Amino acid sequence: MTTASIQQLLSKMTLQEKIAQLIQLAGPFFKGSNQQGEITGPMAEMPITDEHVLNAGSVLGVSGAAEVISIQKKHLEENRLGIPLLFMADIIHGYKTIFPVPLAIGCSWDLELAQKSAEAAAREAAVSGVHVTFAPMVDLVRDPRWGRVMESTGEDPYLNSCFAQAFVKGFQSTDLSNNPDAVAACVKHFAAYGAVEAGRDYNTVDMSERQLRESYLPAYKAALDAGCEMVMTAFNTVDGIPATGNKELMRSLLREEWGFDGVLISDWGAVKELIPHGVAEDEKEAAKKALLAGVDIEMMTECYVQHLEELIEEGSIKLELLDEAVLRILALKEKLGLFDNPYRSADVEKEKEITGHPDHRRTAREIAAKSCVLLKNENQVLPLKKEQQLALVGPFADSQDLLGPWAGVGDQKEAVSLKEAFEHTSSSFLTAKGCGIQDGTLEQMNEAINAASQADVIIAALGESSSMSGEANNRTNIQLPKVQLEFLKKLAALNKPIITVLFNGRPLDLSGVAEFSDAILEAWYPGSEGGNAVADLLFGHVNPSGKLSMSFPVNVGQVPVYYNHFNTGRPKGAPDAQEHYVSDYMDAPNSPLFPFGYGLSYTAFSYQNLELSTEILDEKSVIEASITVTNTGKEAGEEIVQFYIRDISGETVRPMKELKDFKRISLSPGESAEVQFTITEDQLRYHHQDLSFSSDNGAFELFIGKNSQEVLSRTFTLTKKGGQY
Amino acid sequence: MTTASIQQLLSKMTLQEKIAQLIQLAGPFFKGSNQQGEITGPMAEMPITDEHVLNAGSVLGVSGAAEVISIQKKHLEENRLGIPLLFMADIIHGYKTIFPVPLAIGCSWDLELAQKSAEAAAREAAVSGVHVTFAPMVDLVRDPRWGRVMESTGEDPYLNSCFAQAFVKGFQSTDLSNNPDAVAACVKHFAAYGAVEAGRDYNTVDMSERQLRESYLPAYKAALDAGCEMVMTAFNTVDGIPATGNKELMRSLLREEWGFDGVLISDWGAVKELIPHGVAEDEKEAAKKALLAGVDIEMMTECYVQHLEELIEEGSIKLELLDEAVLRILALKEKLGLFDNPYRSADVEKEKEITGHPDHRRTAREIAAKSCVLLKNENQVLPLKKEQQLALVGPFADSQDLLGPWAGVGDQKEAVSLKEAFEHTSSSFLTAKGCGIQDGTLEQMNEAINAASQADVIIAALGESSSMSGEANNRTNIQLPKVQLEFLKKLAALNKPIITVLFNGRPLDLSGVAEFSDAILEAWYPGSEGGNAVADLLFGHVNPSGKLSMSFPVNVGQVPVYYNHFNTGRPKGAPDAQEHYVSDYMDAPNSPLFPFGYGLSYTAFSYQNLELSTEILDEKSVIEASITVTNTGKEAGEEIVQFYIRDISGETVRPMKELKDFKRISLSPGESAEVQFTITEDQLRYHHQDLSFSSDNGAFELFIGKNSQEVLSRTFTLTKKGGQY
Repeated sequence: MTTASIQQLLSKMTLQEKIAQLIQLAGPFFKGSNQQGEITGPMAEMPITDEHVLNAGSVLGVSGAAEVISIQKKHLEENRLGIPLLFMADIIHGYKTIFPVPLAIGCSWDLELAQKSAEAAAREAAVSGVHVTFAPMVDLVRDPRWGRVMESTGEDPYLNSCFAQAFVKGFQSTDLSNNPDAVAACVKHFAAYGAVEAGRDYNTVDMSERQLRESYLPAYKAALDAGCEMVMTAFNTVDGIPATGNKELMRSLLREEWGFDGVLISDWGAVKELIPHGVAEDEKEAAKKALLAGVDIEMMTECYVQHLEELIEEGSIKLELLDEAVLRILALKEKLGLFDNPYRSADVEKEKEITGHPDHRRTAREIAAKSCVLLKNENQVLPLKKEQQLALVGPFADSQDLLGPWAGVGDQKEAVSLKEAFEHTSSSFLTAKGCGIQDGTLEQMNEAINAASQADVIIAALGESSSMSGEANNRTNIQLPKVQLEFLKKLAALNKPIITVLFNGRPLDLSGVAEFSDAILEAWYPGSEGGNAVADLLFGHVNPSGKLSMSFPVNVGQVPVYYNHFNTGRPKGAPDAQEHYVSDYMDAPNSPLFPFGYGLSYTAFSYQNLELSTEILDEKSVIEASITVTNTGKEAGEEIVQFYIRDISGETVRPMKELKDFKRISLSPGESAEVQFTITEDQLRYHHQDLSFSSDNGAFELFIGKNSQEVLSRTFTLTKKGGQY
Repeated sequence: MTTASIQQLLSKMTLQEKIAQLIQLAGPFFKGSNQQGEITGPMAEMPITDEHVLNAGSVLGVSGAAEVISIQKKHLEENRLGIPLLFMADIIHGYKTIFPVPLAIGCSWDLELAQKSAEAAAREAAVSGVHVTFAPMVDLVRDPRWGRVMESTGEDPYLNSCFAQAFVKGFQSTDLSNNPDAVAACVKHFAAYGAVEAGRDYNTVDMSERQLRESYLPAYKAALDAGCEMVMTAFNTVDGIPATGNKELMRSLLREEWGFDGVLISDWGAVKELIPHGVAEDEKEAAKKALLAGVDIEMMTECYVQHLEELIEEGSIKLELLDEAVLRILALKEKLGLFDNPYRSADVEKEKEITGHPDHRRTAREIAAKSCVLLKNENQVLPLKKEQQLALVGPFADSQDLLGPWAGVGDQKEAVSLKEAFEHTSSSFLTAKGCGIQDGTLEQMNEAINAASQADVIIAALGESSSMSGEANNRTNIQLPKVQLEFLKKLAALNKPIITVLFNGRPLDLSGVAEFSDAILEAWYPGSEGGNAVADLLFGHVNPSGKLSMSFPVNVGQVPVYYNHFNTGRPKGAPDAQEHYVSDYMDAPNSPLFPFGYGLSYTAFSYQNLELSTEILDEKSVIEASITVTNTGKEAGEEIVQFYIRDISGETVRPMKELKDFKRISLSPGESAEVQFTITEDQLRYHHQDLSFSSDNGAFELFIGKNSQEVLSRTFTLTKKGGQY
């Protein structure tokens, strides 16, 4: 079909058929589903008629080739014009093969592997009948109280942008139209959902437009620049108006300024939520505001199907606006080839072969190992030595809760626990749980203490259950649960080396962990191959190389704490700072416990000889910065070399550091490499007072180093013509 | 002198003399001061010449009639044109007689007494030679980590505005020109200093202009509407630009939009701090940006005196701008009568009589009692009964650290401790310290436990030392110090009634306090008469009536938590809310421990029969809301009846409640009163998407009650012509 034929199709559609294209319903509504259209619970309360269902445009949350085929078949039998359904689902970090949660992948800084993970997820999802995934989530996050930080790649606009593009490329491949292994991506949540106040999900977001454009928008834009087909709205307000009804944000910025012409979908129920938000008196006003704002698909509420007809008939909404929305949806169906083959890649036989494919599991194991971050390793207690008697204890010692809270059809039973992985090594180990996630018995604890007392080294596998992070799972206390801290303290009393492996969905306050652990390995929710990947690291088969993509605060009272902050007028520790009247706390440092970019290796890297090709830059020239990185340790290892810039003086205040580039290098013991970065004028641009995006002449500082705090630095000057603001 | 004569004076001034009018220096720089111009420490590093000093326009931080007279006298001998100095000082909540800290006064909701306290402070300051006080501070605050919350009256724009006006009227009286007992007020810190990120002083402020105008600006505007003569800049950024160099904020909004033509002064060092902020490369650029932004007086840095001459000569700054600034300063001097009497009210003899005057002390005692908030009173353990044997223990049992961190010349030695106040009662009591603020010995603790074990009732006087709040004193942990919590726990083991009296500068996390205390009286830093005022309440001579003007969080992980928040799209507890996917925490409620407006009495008040004169409002009509409040207890008491409104649906999201009015009533036991509030259309206005300020037709809810949570409600409708947005 061509665009002309879609136009023709549109011309045949009744008003009701057009409107129904805009609704997205869950699988159970459909006769071909396992539930055969027999809905229960809150869904049954929705005023959705059979007519709406048989004309609906899309389905969410259904996967599995058999059911998708069944729903589509039944649908095409009943749909007057034979318009196929679009099937969308949350394929966040893997379909059946589950990769590490996105925050973990963010810590890999490995864009190729990230893309590869998305390719694998897409392949598994496509063959299972999914057309669109509600990913990537690219919300910038600074508040570990928020449960959804695990869905983001972290606190940095640039790194998030890189991952946004890697994921989009992975899901969609280079040519969505001609690649049956690809699915359409839907970047979310537009916009700034990651900045919910007080770390409470769905809460108010408020920030200046400057902050929005400078920090929060770049990753969404990057995803669209990579060709992302769809955008999902955010639950939160942006400048006092819920994103889902925000015309300035959606129509003016996203559609007009950025030129996005793909499908814009509301988050679950978000159109109707304009009522509790208090910007719509009723469903009709909610429908009107959402459509005027540019929302094409209303997910799981009925405002459009109930009220658009009336709104159009009374002239409140122009028919053209509806037609545009319908056309966008039809165009996506066309691009996915659904008019030619409504079942697309859904294939019951191939599905069995491809989902959970060993290749995908290998990728999962590889990326999981790269996503773990070694936070501490005193006296090189890691890697474990062959001759050591080990005790593997803690609630995650033998847990398969390694997939995180948003693993879709991923099955915990197929996850490799740490214990299982240990069993595949030649090492000798005892194991005991010690305690649960939130509670435990004295008997449990004694059993584990007993095991630990017989060992040379204790591996304490601690963390948050996956239900403690993810959507709506927000914590005011971001320490490990008390029982685990007590358990660890008891272990520490044995005076043996303790290696703590953490499984969790957010940066934690590590009080009570850091002081009792000789080594800390942050494993996040590492996915289906989690146990194997962690064992690979613990036993030294793989050398840790992950670096934090989100700061670990000293405590929750420091939040938000992030590396790319401003200097303030009274920075602590400045050469001429006053003694008392500086910006600090009485009872905590300003710096996080572990900063952005931080992560250790079993080997050591030294940074020397930071050289610039020139110290003067203009709009046409470049500066080549080079630095020598040497593996000064005894193991081969990978290092993520990080490149930051600071604009010393701007029209507006500028961050202390901004990540501009990074490189992953691999070095044998004793080996050196010269790592180069290119500085160009466009890296120096920012949003001025009038929100124009440009650079200013003047002094800049560049930093290269192993994390955002340990860096070498040099200055250079931008001297473009007419460049002073 | 008249304006014409000021113009004439200006015409005689050299460029250097004009520029020097714009600098403000501390007392030691001046030959007539006690230091005779012999400066030491960091001040000695400033490139300030004798020429600058003898032409300087103003002095800060000097008070005391003798020294002021001496400095002024010497200055006039040496100043070529005989232009007198302006003397400014931080008279925040009292001069010699210290009233409760502003956050405490905010809890009094007593505007008359607040005004009276400012009148007394002005009288004492004026006779001691002060011309201008750097008060009121009206920054809206929502983050108890910030040390300066004690300087604010709290979290509400309306209540802060009321207090802003009360303080300005109190300081300036109705006619500053003709009242030698008055001083000029300087509202601060413009703007939004109270929103420093992460509660860290001087840190970045970022918010939408909507939020700024809706919540943060009203109190500054209210102060100016009350005639406030001066404005002080804030240390923080506003929309990416430090307030002190922010032309949009100062020149466009403050001067042009609001028409402010008084003197605008930088906060201490804030002009030069444009350099570390990163918006000025050097002092010259800092001087240029500050003057262009509208800053008249540069406090304690040298950018103006070092660089304005060059900036004017090279044409970067027009001479007119300088002249305007000088004229504003001269006009204020004229208004204060300094050209006629450069010593104004400074009088060494009267100073002795008026500072610390018994009338002022009486006012201090009265307002302190009204500022305390009774947070808990189980089994009516308070007031104390005559026959009871009391134990008064804790670090504040016999402490004079009751004045707070910003008490100017207030002398702790003149503060009445709780122990001293108890000695004036007929009650029998034992006393012991138990522990210090941050540490203690076992011996200390045992002594206090011993005393407590002999008593019928324990009064535990706990809190933060004044050095734990105030400028630059920010805490990530807002609980009481550990040693005090341990002490309280030990007291609780005695199984006797415990009355905890808290002395502190911020809303605390009361974990470890609330569960062990039968009663809690929040006394803040109550000022010179603190002990007496608290004793008045404890012994029932005065019935508590204070209500919180800032929410007490359950824990620091809930911050910011405040009553006038938005609803979100997924409010917890809404009738049709989902079970799991609502905006909440896993481990804490959304509500604070004690909400805005909360406070108990020794009697009880019931609220009944909320009636509206009509349920329809238009732009010309009013609705009279009336409610019957009855004293159902056995004591006479005062109650602060609070009136809130909610706009159910707006163009932008609207707060769940907004305080619009309140009334203080006094009722005998069994007595009822009908309390009336008038609703008018102008109370319903807010900032729309285009920032226009107007109301929308539609449904509103009004609430009347004893605090922001316990209310009766009714709905009404606004139906003005053409009122739908």
